[in-house]
This record gives sequence, structure tokens and C-alpha cells, in this order.
Amino acid sequence: MRGLQGAGVHATLKHFVGYSGSRAGRNHAPVHAGQRELQDVFLPPFEMAVRDGGVRSVMNSYTEIDGVPVASSRELLTDLLRRQWGFDGTVVSDYFAVEFLRSMHGIAGSLGEAAQLALEAGIDVELPGPDAYPHLAERVASGALPEAVVDRAVARVLAEKEDLGLLDADFADAPTEIDLDDAEHRALAHRLALESVVLLRNDGVLPLRAPGRIAVIGPNADSGEALMGCYSFANHVLAHHPGVPLGFTLPTVREALASRFGELSFAAGCDVEGSDTTGFAEAVAAAQDADVAIVVVGDRAGLFGRGTVGEGNDADSLELPGVQRQLVEAVVATGTPVVLVLLTGRPYAIGWALDDASGPAAVLQAFFPGEEGAPALAALLAGDATPSGRLPVSLPRSAGAQPYSYLHPILGGPSGVTSTDPTPVRPFGFGLSYTTFERGDLRVDGVACDAGVPASGTTAEVRAGDAFAVSARVSNTGAVRGADVVQVYAHRAVASVTRPVAQLVAYARVELEPGESAEVRFTVPASRLAYSDRALRRVVEPGEVELRLGPSCAAVDEAIALRITGSVYELSVDDARVVDVEVRL
Amino acid sequence: MRGLQGAGVHATLKHFVGYSGSRAGRNHAPVHAGQRELQDVFLPPFEMAVRDGGVRSVMNSYTEIDGVPVASSRELLTDLLRRQWGFDGTVVSDYFAVEFLRSMHGIAGSLGEAAQLALEAGIDVELPGPDAYPHLAERVASGALPEAVVDRAVARVLAEKEDLGLLDADFADAPTEIDLDDAEHRALAHRLALESVVLLRNDGVLPLRAPGRIAVIGPNADSGEALMGCYSFANHVLAHHPGVPLGFTLPTVREALASRFGELSFAAGCDVEGSDTTGFAEAVAAAQDADVAIVVVGDRAGLFGRGTVGEGNDADSLELPGVQRQLVEAVVATGTPVVLVLLTGRPYAIGWALDDASGPAAVLQAFFPGEEGAPALAALLAGDATPSGRLPVSLPRSAGAQPYSYLHPILGGPSGVTSTDPTPVRPFGFGLSYTTFERGDLRVDGVACDAGVPASGTTAEVRAGDAFAVSARVSNTGAVRGADVVQVYAHRAVASVTRPVAQLVAYARVELEPGESAEVRFTVPASRLAYSDRALRRVVEPGEVELRLGPSCAAVDEAIALRITGSVYELSVDDARVVDVEVRL
Repeated sequence: MRGLQGAGVHATLKHFVGYSGSRAGRNHAPVHAGQRELQDVFLPPFEMAVRDGGVRSVMNSYTEIDGVPVASSRELLTDLLRRQWGFDGTVVSDYFAVEFLRSMHGIAGSLGEAAQLALEAGIDVELPGPDAYPHLAERVASGALPEAVVDRAVARVLAEKEDLGLLDADFADAPTEIDLDDAEHRALAHRLALESVVLLRNDGVLPLRAPGRIAVIGPNADSGEALMGCYSFANHVLAHHPGVPLGFTLPTVREALASRFGELSFAAGCDVEGSDTTGFAEAVAAAQDADVAIVVVGDRAGLFGRGTVGEGNDADSLELPGVQRQLVEAVVATGTPVVLVLLTGRPYAIGWALDDASGPAAVLQAFFPGEEGAPALAALLAGDATPSGRLPVSLPRSAGAQPYSYLHPILGGPSGVTSTDPTPVRPFGFGLSYTTFERGDLRVDGVACDAGVPASGTTAEVRAGDAFAVSARVSNTGAVRGADVVQVYAHRAVASVTRPVAQLVAYARVELEPGESAEVRFTVPASRLAYSDRALRRVVEPGEVELRLGPSCAAVDEAIALRITGSVYELSVDDARVVDVEVRL
Repeated sequence: MRGLQGAGVHATLKHFVGYSGSRAGRNHAPVHAGQRELQDVFLPPFEMAVRDGGVRSVMNSYTEIDGVPVASSRELLTDLLRRQWGFDGTVVSDYFAVEFLRSMHGIAGSLGEAAQLALEAGIDVELPGPDAYPHLAERVASGALPEAVVDRAVARVLAEKEDLGLLDADFADAPTEIDLDDAEHRALAHRLALESVVLLRNDGVLPLRAPGRIAVIGPNADSGEALMGCYSFANHVLAHHPGVPLGFTLPTVREALASRFGELSFAAGCDVEGSDTTGFAEAVAAAQDADVAIVVVGDRAGLFGRGTVGEGNDADSLELPGVQRQLVEAVVATGTPVVLVLLTGRPYAIGWALDDASGPAAVLQAFFPGEEGAPALAALLAGDATPSGRLPVSLPRSAGAQPYSYLHPILGGPSGVTSTDPTPVRPFGFGLSYTTFERGDLRVDGVACDAGVPASGTTAEVRAGDAFAVSARVSNTGAVRGADVVQVYAHRAVASVTRPVAQLVAYARVELEPGESAEVRFTVPASRLAYSDRALRRVVEPGEVELRLGPSCAAVDEAIALRITGSVYELSVDDARVVDVEVRL
């Protein structure tokens, strides 16, 4: 948001709020959640975006939460967003969301009623165009709607235009020509891709220092679009305008590997979708003739029935689409070491590829790494750079145990009284490297951890409402340069309501040469440990919290106790939320 | 409850509340639900059990709802249950639920704290035995807990004992010998089984009037335990005491069919669980030598890892366990007509068996029909009786689109903007018969429906807070005696919060001879149309409701409009909830 707004446009924060919690993971499905989950899980990122990020525009979520459509929620769009958080920009509707109050939620009997509900709730602008809002004129004329409510929205839009200079006498309507693909942008795209790819498995095959003959296999290996998400120019615009040129370089994984390694063989093997396995033989033959096979599978992003992932393309199953798993297994069966690269828009259930001795020799989860994704992957595979991405999601064991989040209370985890195992096959925060790291010397406000095990005697203290400092030392104990992501989780054993077994409170990416070490110091406001008490007040309660240093949410290098003292502290929007990070080499 | 309490014991209402809404359908998982869903979906059946059923004992649900464990909820166990609903019996804990406040919910730091939380919330008795509650003595001694709170629970238990005669001077501790399996009980069990089996498909093979040679196939065909649930004597007690005799007659489907039809062949084909298909050949041979094959598959009920369904045996997939689907398909492939009988404890995704022309010729969903289930199934297959059960659940199309309920708002149904289809393969309320029924003459307070289509001009009116009468005529238009279940659903197009697309408001089972017809008249309190408004008050709002007469929630024979007049009416516990049913032949 700061980047966009620094460039002179307004960022729109979306979708406010709850979209990600829809039932069965379906697009446009109701959210079954209580007020506490809303306050403690869904809202905090939005609060930071408004209060700390200074976003100037907000879009509603299509969903309804416990029976109330967000587009009609004055509690969320006005009372919380504007009165409590102090937002004074514009609220725009997601496409057709105003009309949906009638047709998809059944809380309005007419377009005019839908328009009035949305406007009164706090939606200033109807998108994509005038549909229900023109009926506001009738509502005003009939006396059903005070004209001042319309004026309020108009004033906000005018203020936004003024703010952006659109009302200036010298405003030029035609945009000046800008280069969206200059060297600086490409370098940034390359760095983002390098840092976001997550290495999930490596039996030693990576990096490919002297790979010998390389076979590149898979339906996503020679596709530029496979590197991009559903709303990207390549997939969204060009799908509807096939004649329009791409207009920028979008190398495929095959091309990037060829340019890095020289000659290689290629076989698609199959499509992303469908059941056609006739290409398997060519892929198997290519693998048999090679010293290593790089198999690139995953999604094809699109919208509403076009592709396997993207808006409106929900998943009934978490198996890789089509026959791609069978393709991987057929190539693995040749005995040639396989590097599996996943270009996907969602986490699939790929436990079969991660833990079987007979599986691929290495697995990389690249999601959609963008226009520089292929060169970045080639650099990572070659060892020109070291993977340092960490999973921002949990990798599911099965679809049947979903939904799951690492932010679950004890009861949401595995137990002896339920046979469905929700434990992920790779936890939130997980990621491998070509080098090794040692993390330790965990301290809170200078109080040291007790010999590398959960602290017992020593206890640091913080007053609810204050901040505390957590520090740790991380060392690159391996042979190559690499980056660790130092992660600190909080675990609260006893609270007045049930709490997640682990909650990320601070993290930092630290680049280190072999043998180098650094101290990472986080200043954490105690508000990061807040939650909604039995009366739904956002509070920091006195009590004991264990801070855990580890390579993911599921592993602990060191732990230390922190005692929150004083009385129950009720949060206000003026309390600090942002964690301050300092890295000292 | 009335049956149990009429016999001189107290019924325990369980599990209060939310157990059925656990995340991912796992045993002991958190419930993600808001206050409105709790009030409008989860609580009403419990309110009726307390207010209209007069239950004398209540057990808490293990779950936590939006972060609050029910065992610690004074709001639910005292404010709602006792103060609002007027319950004055005892509240008992589910096994270990008090201790779980410490170990499974993390809201108590010690057994003493857990005990105090539970007692103060309203749990009078700790089950299965004293574990945390003995620590109450320390809490009282230290002054942390007023002794009066303990006394309150003691008084309730003593009142219950007095009520049951346990404190009478002449109370005999040893039970008198009673026969739990006399002719009256068996006749009742037989009738319940007859009326609960649901016919899902019938291409004309049923009833088996002159079946010729019958092959009985499947792992559940010759198992008495397969007819019983997980907490039944046969499965729960005998699993732990293999030497103890069953002590009552539990005929298997194979035995009941042999006694009804005479000689038949039998092959198990496979087990309920496991991947062994070596028995398929014998099953296929038996089918090939027969004129009809009756294939009985499904679950084996047990607890915590024993069996395929029952407490602690959750499902990751909704495919039939083991290789049973493959067995059915192998038998169907012989060309011999197949009658598929499902003895299951959950609805499986059996769309493959219901709609394919090449599938079984008939499918019956029998769930666990009990000790007379097999003779009842034999009678239904033979046409001695006609199936009349109706689905009390939706039959899922896939696991990935779950959870789903027919009580979903518009957004919870299929739409063009989501690719996962949550529509069930058979809807709530569905069930076939050997005869045919015609339903019509739908009236509200005497106002007739408009020519069999949704009413337009004619509109009946009811004041919020009053009751209205819905009547309809049902005729047996077929050739055999049978029973229809007349169902009336409400559909409210516009409300202040989102409402289910259909909600069952009244139903009645009507037995009719061929050619016979009956008028069914329901007196429905308008409170059946209540829901929680934006301020979470349970209200009946003025507005229009469509009442639909149909064979399930998803089909409409006739519809009629009802206008609710007056002002918003807030419900009290003294409002009627029960629908009065009158059937006039």
C-alpha cells in the first residue's frame, strides 16, 4: 500500500472482511464465524493496514458473516472502520455487491432498498458501474433516505479526487507514458521470486552443480502463463484478447533452464487438466536419457471455469489437477533423480511427494513466482542463490481434515479421540536451505533462556500495555551464503478464552555468509498478545506466555517464559501494533 | 424423553450445545459459529426439549464455540438454560469435560480452577467420576469459592434423587428383573425400522414379488452387529467382553431374507474395511447364478479406532469404506439386477449408485435399523410393506463441498461464481415409495392456493405472535398401501438478515390405502418463522413468506403466500413452539 500510494495512486484494501473464511473454501460462500474470531483473526491485518499503513480506499467483502452481508454492515464499514479506526477515505463495493444484497443475500426487496442499505452502511461508490445507486434518487425523493447520507458519500469521493489532484486545473487526463517493465522493476521481480520459493525437500540432489544431462518435463515447464496468477495481464486480459501481444518478456522455466544450463531435453508429458496420459511415454523416455529430471507441474490460473485455480475456480479435491501426480510418479519410477517444481495457486495435498523414500529427490513450492519466476528458479536450482522462502500456509495432509490453520486451539489439533489427522505435512513457517543455521541465545529484555530448554526459573516481565524486547542469535553454520527467517511464536497455556497453540509474533529474514552470525532484536508491543475476553473486549491479560524460537510454528529451538503483569489492559487504536526489527551483524 | 421419563427414569439431553457443528466434522473439534447461528440453528431443538419435552437432566457438549468451552459457559448452562428456559434439573458433565478445561481448552491452570469454572458455570455433577470436583474443597477452604455455590449443586442432586424416589425409606437398591426384549418392544423396533428405511432408487426391481434365485452379497449381509450403532450393547459392550452372550435375537439380513424367501446363495465378497478383493470372484459368481442380487454394504460401528463410524471414528473421505464400492460395481457389472442396501452411520457420497443407468437397480438407505432391522428390510424388499422413510440429512455429492445443510442461505447454494457444487445428490426430505401420491389443495387459514402454482393474488395473513393453519390434501394414487410424509417448507425472500432458502415448518406421516386420501392440517405458531435480527433479538418480522408443499426440501408441488402483519414481535419462552398436526381421512 505504501508503495502504491507513494507512486501517487490510492491503494484499495480488500476484501474487508472475512472472504478467506468462506464455508468449504468456496467463492461467495457464507462465513460461519463468531465475533471473537472476527476480532482476533480476521480484523487485525485490516486494522494495521488502516492505522499503520494509511490506506486510502477500502472494498467490501462479498461474504455474509453469521447472517449479515458485509456490504450492509454499518457496524463494520462505519462504526469500526471510520469511528474506531479513524479511516476517512472512500469505501467502494466489490463488483455487483450492492445488487447482491437483493439477489444473493435476500435482505433487500428492490434495487432501491439494496442501494439504501449499502449507502447507509458506508459504501460510497458502487462498482463496476451504476446499477443500484441510481435508485437512490427515488429514495431521496420519497423521503425514505435523507439527502445528507448521499452528500456524505459524494463529499468523500470529491475529497479523494481533490487529494489525487484530479480536480486541479492543470490535471492532464491522458496518462503519461510509463515503463512498467524497466530494469529496476525486473530486478525487484527477480528478488521477490528468489526469496519466495520454498524448498520443501532435498535429498542432496540440489543445487545442481554439475547436473549432466537435464530433462525438463511437465505441462507447466514451458508455459509463461503458468508463472502468473489469475488476474495477471497474461492470464486475465490475454484470455479475452488473444490477438493482443504480451508486450513484455516472460521466459518459461524451460527457457530459463536452457539459458542457464545449455542443452536439455523437454517433454510436457500431459496437460494441467484432463486424463490424457499418452504423453507419459515421451516424458519417461526423456527422464531415462537424463541424469536429472526437473518436473514442473501445478495449476493454470484463470477465472470462473477457465483454468484450475483463481476466482471462481474452487477445489473439491486437493490432489494435483488432472494426471499430473501420475506423471510425476511415472518419471520418479525411472530411477532418474527428480526435482519437482510446483507452480500452484493453492497448497495441494502432496504428502506423497514429500516423505516417501521413493518420491522425488527434491521438491520446490514456487506458487506463482511472476515474470522473473523462471530465471529465479534456474538460479536457485543451479545454486547461484539459496532458497529462503518459508511457507505462509500449512501444507494439508488431506482435504477431509480442512479447514485447518496453525492458529488453532488445542482442540483443533490431533488427539486420541478423533481419527482424522489435521496435522499438516509441512507446517506454517517451514522452508529448507542449501546451508544450515543455528539459532539460540533467546532473551527477553536481556533475560537469557535457560540452557536451550524452555525456561523455568528465569522469567522476564512486561506490563500489559507496554512493549518487550526479544532477541536471538542466528549463525550460518553451513558452506554457502543463505538467508534464515528467524521466527518467534507465542504460546499461552492458560487464558480466559481458548488460544492458538502457537501464534507468530515476530520474524526477520537475515542474509548470512558462511560462518557469519547476527543478532536479531524485536521490540514487540504487548498488544500482539491481545485477544477478545469473555466480554469481547480486546485485552492483554496478565499471565504467563512462552516465547518460542524455531524454524517453523511446529518446532522449537529455544523457549523462554514471559510474565505479563499488572491488571487486565483494554486495547485502544492508539496502542502500538507494529513489531520493530533490528538486525546486527 | 417423555418415553424414558414416563418409565420412571430421568432422560439426559445431550450434548448441549454445538457438538454437531465441529470443524471438519471431527470429534472434539472447535465450533466456528456466531451467536445468530447458535440461536437460530443449534439452540431451538434444545429449547423444545426443555420447555416442551420437560427433560430433567442435561449434559454439556465437549466443544468450544468461538473460543468459549461450553463446560465453562455460564451464559449457556445457567443464564439461558435455567434463567431463561426455566430448567431446574441437574446438569452433568460429559466424561472428563471438567478436567478438559485445563488439558484440552487451556482456560484453567489447575484441576481446582477447572472445577470452580465448571461448577460456577452450572455443571452440578462431574462424570464419569470424581476427578476435578474433589478439589472444590480446597477452593472453598481458601475462600476462592463460596460454599453456597457447592450447596446449590448438591441441592439439585438431592432434589433429583428425591424426585426419583431414591431417598424413599422403601427404595430397593437392586433392580427388579425386567424384560427389555418382549413382544411389544420387538413390535415397536420392527415398526421403527420399517418406517425409517429410505428408498433412494427403484428402477422397477422392487418389490421382489417373484424374485427367482436370490444372491445375498456383501460384508454387512450376514452381520447382526452391522444393524446396530456404536453405543449399542452388541458393539460397545460385547467388543470389550467377547465371552458375554448377546442375550437377544439379532437376525442378520441374510437370515431374514432366507426366512422370508427360502433358499438363497451368499457371499461376503469383502470386509467392510481393508483392500482385500479376493472374495469378489465368489460374489460375482453368486450374482451370475441369480436372478437378483441383494448387496448389503456400509459401516461397522465402533468407538475410537474400532470400526468405520461411531464416536472418534471420523471420516476424511465420504467414499464407502474399503473396497465396498468396487464390490458393488463388480456385482452390478454381471448384469444381474442389484438391490443395494446401505447400513451406514453417516451419509456417504453415493451419487455413482443413484443416477447412472448402469448402476444398481434399487438403493435403500437403512442407516442402523436396530434389532428388527433385518426382518423389516426383508418385509420391505418383499413388498409386505412399502418404504416410507424420508432423508433426515442431505446426501452429499462430494466431501470437498462439505459442510452443507439444506438450511443454507442463497450464498450457500450453487452459483455461477463458484465451481464446487454443494448440491446434494438426494435432498433432505427425499424418499421413494412403491405407490404414488398426489399432494395439493394447499391452504393457509382456508385461503386456497392459486391453481397449483406459487400464489400471486391471494395472500393469507397472520399477526406475528399468533398461529396460522396450513392444510393440504394427499391421495394415494397408486396400487398398494403406503405412507407419504407431507412436508411444508417456508421460504422467505426478504428479511433483515439472510435466511435459509427453505426451512421445514411442519410434516406428517399419512398411511393411505390405494385410492384413499386425507386432509392434513397443521397449526403452526408464527414463532416457527422467527430468527435473530441484527440486534440478535429472536423476532418474528412482518413480511411475506412463501409456504411450499412438496416431497422434499428441493421440490415444490404447490406454494402459497403468507403475509406476516403487525410490528416486529420479540419471542419469549412462553410463546408456543410446537406444531399441532391433525390428519382427517
